[in-house]
Amino acid sequence: MGEMKKGTLTKEMIVQKAAPIFNSRGYFGASMSDVMEATGLEKGGIYNHFASKDELALAAFDHIMTVNGTRVRNAVEAQELAADRLYAFLDAFGDLVTNPSVPGGCPLMNCAVDSDDAHPVLRRKVRAAMKRLLSYVEGMIQVGVDSGEFSTGIDPASAAVFIVASIEGGMMLSKLYEEPMRMRAVTKNLKVYVSNLNG
Amino acid sequence: MGEMKKGTLTKEMIVQKAAPIFNSRGYFGASMSDVMEATGLEKGGIYNHFASKDELALAAFDHIMTVNGTRVRNAVEAQELAADRLYAFLDAFGDLVTNPSVPGGCPLMNCAVDSDDAHPVLRRKVRAAMKRLLSYVEGMIQVGVDSGEFSTGIDPASAAVFIVASIEGGMMLSKLYEEPMRMRAVTKNLKVYVSNLNG
Repeated sequence: MGEMKKGTLTKEMIVQKAAPIFNSRGYFGASMSDVMEATGLEKGGIYNHFASKDELALAAFDHIMTVNGTRVRNAVEAQELAADRLYAFLDAFGDLVTNPSVPGGCPLMNCAVDSDDAHPVLRRKVRAAMKRLLSYVEGMIQVGVDSGEFSTGIDPASAAVFIVASIEGGMMLSKLYEEPMRMRAVTKNLKVYVSNLNG
Repeated sequence: MGEMKKGTLTKEMIVQKAAPIFNSRGYFGASMSDVMEATGLEKGGIYNHFASKDELALAAFDHIMTVNGTRVRNAVEAQELAADRLYAFLDAFGDLVTNPSVPGGCPLMNCAVDSDDAHPVLRRKVRAAMKRLLSYVEGMIQVGVDSGEFSTGIDPASAAVFIVASIEGGMMLSKLYEEPMRMRAVTKNLKVYVSNLNG
């Protein structure tokens, strides 16, 4: 195995071990000694791959977004109709709560709150990621409106904000009480909402 | 003015000045030097009234919850019918976003995420406060079901989780983008949801 390949693998390992730490303890609250313990590396071994703790925090965020995003997209793309795609989307988020790839709750929510006023780089990243999520949902609804499956009276942008806000709040409540049932109350009610989009 | 009265006023002033700092920068990310600057007091003058930074953080949380809670309850209690009370509740939260008493977003959401795994005392406090909010909404819906205003098929607990989750997510999105319009998309859709509770 070449040195370069080995370096890439070490870098990936660090991100994978660091992701649950940053996501659980806060992207700026987590300490490098936690990451050192989880990876079994010295501080120098980590800084070999990441210029700073912030750079590692951002890589951890990207990692979780990629893993979760793949799960959601795979579920959605297995469906044809706009309503079925939205149901699959809601079920995928419910599944992220009961069976998370990375513990610690929703990285978008965690970072949106963590990065409120103090961390402009993370905030820009979270805004961009949230915008992609909102656009993804809006696009699914727009396709349903265009195909005649949903009522033309639907405002896809407004409906997308409502769906994403409800999901994020549901993930927060589930995490706060460590009760995935809270998320089910949200996805169940949102499915009724989706079933009414046909007017 | 007696010494005791003066001490109480100073303590209240510290909490009022500290609340926006803790709510914006994080209940455990904010620094005492920020509080010293905002209050114009030396560290000793603050620790005279609060045993620790954590005790002040908890008092700041309580302060914002009391101020916001009063605004919401006053709006709700001006209405008679269950649906009108819920509309007033939603408008009051919309108003908290556009015209906040204390900047920095929703203290419940901020603390729920801040206190995730690392701060058990704050977490218990947030769980209790969120439970009061959920019970308040559930109670309004239950009254509507009992009076025949809402359908008997409604599950008040599940509906309350959905409404609170959506509101909290809407406040998070509004804060993330600094766009109160995001919250309006949520309250508008929730009003349609409430209007359908009569079955």
